[in-house]
Amino acid sequence: MPITTRLTERLGLATPILSAPMAFAGGGELAASVSAAGALGLIGGGYGDGDWLDAQFEAAGNQPVGCGFITWSLADQPALLDRVIAHAPKAVMLSFGDPAPFVPKVREAGAVAICQTQTMAHIRDALAAGADIVVAQGSEAGGHGAKRGTLSFVAEAVDHCRAESPGTLVLAAGGLADGRGLAAALMLGADGVLMGSRFWASREALVPQGFYDAALAADGDATVRTTLVDVIRRKQWPAEFDIRVLDNAFTRAWQGREDLLRDGLEEAEARYNAAAVAGDADNAGVIVGEATGLIRDIPSAGDLVARITAEAETLLKTGPGYCS
Amino acid sequence: MPITTRLTERLGLATPILSAPMAFAGGGELAASVSAAGALGLIGGGYGDGDWLDAQFEAAGNQPVGCGFITWSLADQPALLDRVIAHAPKAVMLSFGDPAPFVPKVREAGAVAICQTQTMAHIRDALAAGADIVVAQGSEAGGHGAKRGTLSFVAEAVDHCRAESPGTLVLAAGGLADGRGLAAALMLGADGVLMGSRFWASREALVPQGFYDAALAADGDATVRTTLVDVIRRKQWPAEFDIRVLDNAFTRAWQGREDLLRDGLEEAEARYNAAAVAGDADNAGVIVGEATGLIRDIPSAGDLVARITAEAETLLKTGPGYCS
Repeated sequence: MPITTRLTERLGLATPILSAPMAFAGGGELAASVSAAGALGLIGGGYGDGDWLDAQFEAAGNQPVGCGFITWSLADQPALLDRVIAHAPKAVMLSFGDPAPFVPKVREAGAVAICQTQTMAHIRDALAAGADIVVAQGSEAGGHGAKRGTLSFVAEAVDHCRAESPGTLVLAAGGLADGRGLAAALMLGADGVLMGSRFWASREALVPQGFYDAALAADGDATVRTTLVDVIRRKQWPAEFDIRVLDNAFTRAWQGREDLLRDGLEEAEARYNAAAVAGDADNAGVIVGEATGLIRDIPSAGDLVARITAEAETLLKTGPGYCS
Repeated sequence: MPITTRLTERLGLATPILSAPMAFAGGGELAASVSAAGALGLIGGGYGDGDWLDAQFEAAGNQPVGCGFITWSLADQPALLDRVIAHAPKAVMLSFGDPAPFVPKVREAGAVAICQTQTMAHIRDALAAGADIVVAQGSEAGGHGAKRGTLSFVAEAVDHCRAESPGTLVLAAGGLADGRGLAAALMLGADGVLMGSRFWASREALVPQGFYDAALAADGDATVRTTLVDVIRRKQWPAEFDIRVLDNAFTRAWQGREDLLRDGLEEAEARYNAAAVAGDADNAGVIVGEATGLIRDIPSAGDLVARITAEAETLLKTGPGYCS
């Protein structure tokens, strides 16, 4: 059975769920599986490898999918947006940087412009840029983000958009991994959810088995926000963002000692990269959020969409029963 | 109209809301106003001033109220628990420290034993101690706390308690300030909510007007977790906890320079204390959470209980409408 919100009506979906455009982990197969199940899958544009992106749209086949960019990285090679638009994406998501230079082109191309935000200041920027959809991403999310907790941030984002731009939809992100999270987000006033970690832990994601094993064994206490992963990968992230990963031997060795890591970067980088390729979850960055404590299996992404939707539907129908 | 959950049935409430036992801010008048409206008010036991506590129970009159302690502080003067039990509290809440030495006495006295937790490890400790109710408090809360985001922490806490101790209730705390937060918490599987900041911003709380003005003007981005407030107040908090306050001239002057503050503590302390008494929100710790962005008025606590309940009820009744 479908769940209907402004998001499903606007995008023609059967359930108000988007999969996050996870750099490296979220390719065309994952996005297509999510879309085929009635949600919308987003390919991870990451740091901008055009050939890889072409291949992922190819892998998505005839399924309508979208693509997400790291905005500050896209600004370094803006032609990549044209290359993605040539694939007629259903939506383009912009995260982590000023969306203003890109939103008009996305909308002129007939795609839905989604801006992911981490602060109220970002939301104001997204509305000024003309975003169709604002994602309010809380700190418990895996991967890059900032400080606000999901719950109050989503409610505050909803209030702000209702007052300033009532046609702009709001999605919740960060710490959401099941039907409970979807039902809770709708109660907060969101039009739907964007889930990362839950789809990262699916069969179609591009994640080594060792990382899955570590995430399945971890509870939600076992993650940490850090800049170490960007230091070692030589990514020049703006200071307001850091990244949430599993707290492991790598983070424990270097947390608070970023300068020492920079001093011996070449050797450490070689070890890190080898561990990442090998799926060695102790010595590489395992990019998953606090929702790892809610993740207990690695099913197909399409099965996840069905499961989350069914669970949310059951919960939403219990609502009136609380009111006696 | 009431909202019914396991919490309301167990405690004989009309709505599944507790007010947090806020040190200094939460006295007997606030707790009684909350209880009179059908929720349960908790007096803030804080750092343990027995005469003050006696006066607050006196101020609560005939309303059934509870009391909350800072557990590591209670351990320094355990006789305070007997003094509170002499007032026949409906519930005793233990936060920030090992609850095991105190839970049995609370239960033997016929009071409900509530343990506030910030990590899965704390939840395991609380269950082992025999807690009747576990509060899963997320990082967006005002005042002391730790790192987990409310949303996924609550869901994980619910899963754990269902599996290990199904009779133990779970309440959500952190970032909750309205009926949306209550409805969302119920969808996550919680039996109710504990709200701090929202009741801090009520007429019956013991808060200077200057702090209210600052909180009403702030959005939810404008808070910070810090240890500065404890350094300057000479409170020896365990390292795993810090405190969320408004980010103001005081925090910006010293954040990251805790050692310098310690070096000139006497002078800084005098200025801080004078500012706290004067309600100078720039130069004292204004203890409010990210929910400050959802707080736009200072009504009576009883009116807040009614408003939050009515809003949650309206939302819960919309649940089936999403399922078409």
